[in-house]
Amino acid sequence: MNENRVLRIGIPKGSLTDSTVDLFSRAGFALNVSRRGYYPSIDDPELECIMFRAQEMSRYVEDGVLDAGLTGYDWIRENGSDVHQVCELSYSKATSRPARWVLAVPIESKAQAIEDLDGGVVATELVNVTRQYFEERGLNVKTEFSWGTTEVKARLVDGIVELTETGSSLLANNLRIIDEILSSTPRFIANRQAYDDPWKREKIESLAVLLRGASEARAKVGLKLNVARRNLKKVLKILPAELSPTISSLADEHFVAVEVILEAVVERKIVPELQRAGASGIIVYPLNKVIP
Amino acid sequence: MNENRVLRIGIPKGSLTDSTVDLFSRAGFALNVSRRGYYPSIDDPELECIMFRAQEMSRYVEDGVLDAGLTGYDWIRENGSDVHQVCELSYSKATSRPARWVLAVPIESKAQAIEDLDGGVVATELVNVTRQYFEERGLNVKTEFSWGTTEVKARLVDGIVELTETGSSLLANNLRIIDEILSSTPRFIANRQAYDDPWKREKIESLAVLLRGASEARAKVGLKLNVARRNLKKVLKILPAELSPTISSLADEHFVAVEVILEAVVERKIVPELQRAGASGIIVYPLNKVIP
Amino acid sequence: MNENRVLRIGIPKGSLTDSTVDLFSRAGFALNVSRRGYYPSIDDPELECIMFRAQEMSRYVEDGVLDAGLTGYDWIRENGSDVHQVCELSYSKATSRPARWVLAVPIESKAQAIEDLDGGVVATELVNVTRQYFEERGLNVKTEFSWGTTEVKARLVDGIVELTETGSSLLANNLRIIDEILSSTPRFIANRQAYDDPWKREKIESLAVLLRGASEARAKVGLKLNVARRNLKKVLKILPAELSPTISSLADEHFVAVEVILEAVVERKIVPELQRAGASGIIVYPLNKVIP
Amino acid sequence: MNENRVLRIGIPKGSLTDSTVDLFSRAGFALNVSRRGYYPSIDDPELECIMFRAQEMSRYVEDGVLDAGLTGYDWIRENGSDVHQVCELSYSKATSRPARWVLAVPIESKAQAIEDLDGGVVATELVNVTRQYFEERGLNVKTEFSWGTTEVKARLVDGIVELTETGSSLLANNLRIIDEILSSTPRFIANRQAYDDPWKREKIESLAVLLRGASEARAKVGLKLNVARRNLKKVLKILPAELSPTISSLADEHFVAVEVILEAVVERKIVPELQRAGASGIIVYPLNKVIP
Amino acid sequence: MNENRVLRIGIPKGSLTDSTVDLFSRAGFALNVSRRGYYPSIDDPELECIMFRAQEMSRYVEDGVLDAGLTGYDWIRENGSDVHQVCELSYSKATSRPARWVLAVPIESKAQAIEDLDGGVVATELVNVTRQYFEERGLNVKTEFSWGTTEVKARLVDGIVELTETGSSLLANNLRIIDEILSSTPRFIANRQAYDDPWKREKIESLAVLLRGASEARAKVGLKLNVARRNLKKVLKILPAELSPTISSLADEHFVAVEVILEAVVERKIVPELQRAGASGIIVYPLNKVIP
Amino acid sequence: MNENRVLRIGIPKGSLTDSTVDLFSRAGFALNVSRRGYYPSIDDPELECIMFRAQEMSRYVEDGVLDAGLTGYDWIRENGSDVHQVCELSYSKATSRPARWVLAVPIESKAQAIEDLDGGVVATELVNVTRQYFEERGLNVKTEFSWGTTEVKARLVDGIVELTETGSSLLANNLRIIDEILSSTPRFIANRQAYDDPWKREKIESLAVLLRGASEARAKVGLKLNVARRNLKKVLKILPAELSPTISSLADEHFVAVEVILEAVVERKIVPELQRAGASGIIVYPLNKVIP
Repeated sequence: MNENRVLRIGIPKGSLTDSTVDLFSRAGFALNVSRRGYYPSIDDPELECIMFRAQEMSRYVEDGVLDAGLTGYDWIRENGSDVHQVCELSYSKATSRPARWVLAVPIESKAQAIEDLDGGVVATELVNVTRQYFEERGLNVKTEFSWGTTEVKARLVDGIVELTETGSSLLANNLRIIDEILSSTPRFIANRQAYDDPWKREKIESLAVLLRGASEARAKVGLKLNVARRNLKKVLKILPAELSPTISSLADEHFVAVEVILEAVVERKIVPELQRAGASGIIVYPLNKVIP
Repeated sequence: MNENRVLRIGIPKGSLTDSTVDLFSRAGFALNVSRRGYYPSIDDPELECIMFRAQEMSRYVEDGVLDAGLTGYDWIRENGSDVHQVCELSYSKATSRPARWVLAVPIESKAQAIEDLDGGVVATELVNVTRQYFEERGLNVKTEFSWGTTEVKARLVDGIVELTETGSSLLANNLRIIDEILSSTPRFIANRQAYDDPWKREKIESLAVLLRGASEARAKVGLKLNVARRNLKKVLKILPAELSPTISSLADEHFVAVEVILEAVVERKIVPELQRAGASGIIVYPLNKVIP
Repeated sequence: MNENRVLRIGIPKGSLTDSTVDLFSRAGFALNVSRRGYYPSIDDPELECIMFRAQEMSRYVEDGVLDAGLTGYDWIRENGSDVHQVCELSYSKATSRPARWVLAVPIESKAQAIEDLDGGVVATELVNVTRQYFEERGLNVKTEFSWGTTEVKARLVDGIVELTETGSSLLANNLRIIDEILSSTPRFIANRQAYDDPWKREKIESLAVLLRGASEARAKVGLKLNVARRNLKKVLKILPAELSPTISSLADEHFVAVEVILEAVVERKIVPELQRAGASGIIVYPLNKVIP
Repeated sequence: MNENRVLRIGIPKGSLTDSTVDLFSRAGFALNVSRRGYYPSIDDPELECIMFRAQEMSRYVEDGVLDAGLTGYDWIRENGSDVHQVCELSYSKATSRPARWVLAVPIESKAQAIEDLDGGVVATELVNVTRQYFEERGLNVKTEFSWGTTEVKARLVDGIVELTETGSSLLANNLRIIDEILSSTPRFIANRQAYDDPWKREKIESLAVLLRGASEARAKVGLKLNVARRNLKKVLKILPAELSPTISSLADEHFVAVEVILEAVVERKIVPELQRAGASGIIVYPLNKVIP
Repeated sequence: MNENRVLRIGIPKGSLTDSTVDLFSRAGFALNVSRRGYYPSIDDPELECIMFRAQEMSRYVEDGVLDAGLTGYDWIRENGSDVHQVCELSYSKATSRPARWVLAVPIESKAQAIEDLDGGVVATELVNVTRQYFEERGLNVKTEFSWGTTEVKARLVDGIVELTETGSSLLANNLRIIDEILSSTPRFIANRQAYDDPWKREKIESLAVLLRGASEARAKVGLKLNVARRNLKKVLKILPAELSPTISSLADEHFVAVEVILEAVVERKIVPELQRAGASGIIVYPLNKVIP
Repeated sequence: MNENRVLRIGIPKGSLTDSTVDLFSRAGFALNVSRRGYYPSIDDPELECIMFRAQEMSRYVEDGVLDAGLTGYDWIRENGSDVHQVCELSYSKATSRPARWVLAVPIESKAQAIEDLDGGVVATELVNVTRQYFEERGLNVKTEFSWGTTEVKARLVDGIVELTETGSSLLANNLRIIDEILSSTPRFIANRQAYDDPWKREKIESLAVLLRGASEARAKVGLKLNVARRNLKKVLKILPAELSPTISSLADEHFVAVEVILEAVVERKIVPELQRAGASGIIVYPLNKVIP
């Protein structure tokens, strides 16, 4: 009897909380995070949620305090945690690019390559990864833990290793990137013992399917159009080759309806072309989940 | 001529405001609540909105200040208001379970059953319902009105009657539930005279159809998939029996498209099974309104 | 080679920011506005965004600091800017009515018509348009620039010219409208030189298609229903005449599926009628974009 | 041995919290209220603090849950609580006038005197006091409890009874005062049994001295000046007769220093006169406590 | 009879509001500004307060809407208002230096002197003063009104004229100061007619004395010490020459008490010296008002 | 020439920022911290301020990035920093007790003594001090770094080491203290080289005198009273023996004025006794600085 079994999962506390709630909502779960609570409720009695900072999540998954959790690849590496990485997730359209940890120096610094930091001091929140990075390159760089607002410290030490998505906050602080240390994406991870338990593994895998489907859906849209049969070929040629559109007959036999799921960045490119090719009644609609 | 007729409805002020705006939006209305206004605008000249606390809504509907309003069953009972209950509404996925008013005592209290509170004092916001509850059971319990943060008072008096959805805030305050006093869901209510006026009744009933449709849609999703005709039976068997999926033919005659509306909690269970049964191109999309 | 070409567009800072982000999201772009940044990121390397107040946007488009931008017709007029108006946009369901700049006086004022303000003082943020308005009517009214909270000043001077959408904030301040000065809707505007550059013009026009499609979609929904062939006519008659619904055959040949895109305000009216005409399985779903 | 004895006092939660903390600080206590805590810490081991709404404070003092507490005379009356009123306190310069509960109607109402409300409905938070007020006058007025924002309801019922300090929020809502129902000031109250216990009574009385001294000091200032002996009489005549200034000799025997404690509203009046009378080096300084 | 006479004064709305309330409090008035109100209450029936932005204050004083008001010299100049400047006020220790409007360019700009901006565009909130500045120097610079966040525009036009107190926000935006346009301090101003009315003039002058006294007191402290008569000379020599300390005899005839009012910036310098010169029991206390 | 010399000091960022600004203000400095700035301005050209988290302050002082700084003893120890501790400071009345880092376990835990944690896991922000603590006692306890909200983790690991001032937040989380690990107070620290530089040392020492004087003054008040000469002895006996009150003669020779500086906690005790002993005109006033 599995009715009373429960999977304990870690929800990231902080800047990722809102998009995690949204991800679970698309996946079909009502995850309810109160502002000061650490035990969000969820409408699945087989799940129990606890909030942790992304920075420490993998340690609690490794220790077995959690069966599974969501965190970033960067912090798994920083903690050196031995966990099973179930799948990668892309969290939002805005951050679908991987986050990058970069080594940066003040614009006016003489350092042009990482070798120029030899003998210097670097501040970062990602201490272990950074130390390893310099050691592997045979460089003697003192790496100090920075409690937040690292970019402000770039002028007080020799350089910093900081997270950047677009590079714009580095620019705003007049910093220059010298190298990329680590590229990171969100991950759904599991404790190794938990993953060996058949019931837990199935629960983890189902959750992975739903979360991945929800994650995929963020960057995609549904597109529907009507087109005269004689123009169908032209229209189909505009659609990316790898897609298999659903073509359905309409009451008016001269026309068919074409429906396809595609990347939003593609959709916004081809819509004008489709119009020119004779498509009409084009609509684009949002998706909760896409499972190919 | 009905052109100048207006239905006056009460919108709940407070924690329900945001989800009410969302409910009206799905129902097809742009309800616009400014942060300090008490007269939200709405894009239907036949509607006039006024905000009241859910606690006092039913009194103003009973008195005829309002023709109709949204509030909870608990406060209708507390006020003992004589109003017409047009329909029940479920407000959100997260709170689709009814809210429960429970009698709770400190974990360390000796009270195990309600009889143990005889001669004691209980604090609550729901004074009348609580008094009646004890009276019906022949118990002599002094019931005092509590101005908020009732759970903090549990250790100062003998027990409290407090609202709970998941029981987690009771737990956080180390309280133990002894009994459930009342279970409550949101209601759309109408003034009895207003409901006897033909024009108002029709307006109220139309609104009820739209609000219920919107309310239903919150817990549901649309699911679409393609499947080879030979696998259709297998796929249909996975879908809950009571659903009647829309099956449409595709250009490729070996395949059909299946579309169905179902509960999100069901959908998240069967998606992996559908995949295994040969379904492809599964997408899940959100709904504004569902009218069966 | 156009790969490195960039179009610089102005995003309105202030009350329109959130709905602009939403508009771009529906249009298919991830526009990312950080709370204090003036250079929002966007996932299209051919676009570069800068934030300006709607009030000054058209001046920077005219000067060529920006190639294009989003602002209101009122501020284009106020600045007297010579720009190309690419298209009109409706920003949200709640504000799909044009915003109106009205001349208002205290309820108790003796002024009944604009002539009664001759020789008086009027406060407004829209100084130039207001001055021109009075001059054209041969009236001598001193028009003073008001730094915000103009409605409070109505009792200190003789009248104000203020923006209103529903008239409710005027009412709350006990003001009475005497005349409408200007009606305004959001506009997508372009610098004249930029619009003459073929690459920029194409980029601007594509953006216009997507933004207009997204803007249209806000007030519209998709509606789908099943109906027996014998009832089809009845159902079709209920739908607004100008719509061309997509009718598709179902597996059960006695039934067809009808799908149509229509205004939300229409949909909420006809849903009960459709039900009475024999339609079943009615669902309403949200749209990102509608291109007729 | 009294070392382990403790007096339990109630601190008002809500709009009075900040000024209560300030009052205790002037009185010499570090009262530390965390944002969500209900048990503020205080640097006196003989005191234990609990937070309650002013509205319910007197009930908990009467019941003995608290030994003493700070609340308003209005809520003592509303609850009909049998408590010992230790002393009156004035809470701040800004609110040194008593708060008034007034019966108000819309400006445009026909009601001119309270008799005109006979047979009508009045909304208020102060239900019991209001009911008694109408009963004593032989008027049949239905008095309904209002959950906040009472002034908005004035146009939905016949009148309201609402708290006002300056009358300005009534004005902003276009209401007109018909009568004053109750005038109220803050009170330090004690449970009757607690007050009969000698140790508690002494503790309560000491606290009362300190709180009153701190409360007095808010509206007062210290004033110091130098004056030639020959002008002393003139200067003394300007000072309010009932004050006994401290006159001290200076090194320069022709001059004396005059120091006096007086009301801030008096001080601001006489400072220019003192200057004209020959006083120099006038300084005004703040006070924590004044015990005459 | 002057009892019903009222002086109408303008209180600056915005960043100066809090320090104005503090200034009035030190001056002896309880000025009570609610968050959304425009008519703050004050505990002097002869005063009536209205809030305006500092930017427009002088215009309403000039027009007679207000009898007097507090604003900055910069905005009096910008509006070209003909008002009586009653006195200068320094608002706080932190901002006791005058605010400076400076012409700034990006660090990397080629412009080194104001002549280099000839033919260019400058953005500023202080349009009129800036125009006049360039005209007086015979330079042709287009001066555009900037709606806030001017420093962000420095790279979009040729330069900006912006307010700075410490220069640090210019630095943070990598701007370089080329010239100072205007130096400004807060002023208490009066309408010319109002100032000619004897009752109003006396009220204005009294207010000026109190506000100036309060304003002076912010940068000053009281210092008291005991010293043996034989060391008195040494101690007195350390005190700034222009001060006349109050020396009073003590019970112990060998000692005297010295009391003096002095600038905080001086006090913090000489305290260690006083200690070395034999002073003991040194205390420093805050002041509400200082009238020399 | 020292005119251009500058001392660089670190200001703690976070919960201590407000009280540090207040401390500097009492000390005589206008320290101006903008919400997002890291370089607060100060009205002393010989000082330059930078903000750091208290947790990392001592590292930057040790490295010489800063000449001096304010932080807690706990973080000096945690970082193992070799710095000169100039003086101890007490930061506020409310927190004049040292902060304590305690080892705590859930109330229901079996652990009663630290030995019971042998072999277990402990979460804390103070990793190094905690590790050393267990090592010195020969216990094998895995100490993990906790990113905030440590008290929530107490039930996930075996125990926590957390900061507490009153023990109340531990209580709220149902934790029990097993031992005190470290007691900590704020410190003013200096870099060793900087302290060897004569100019910097003098600047640091002067600052220390002022900050200590300001720090002392928080817990103290000035008390002044008048008393008849014949009662003087009685009054003096009530005052703590170690104080030397300033007694000054009054114009009325039968009376003297007594003035004394004393602890607020003492003052609130003796005020009633002084009254009984014949003292009159008792006033208590706040102090900025006390240098004995």
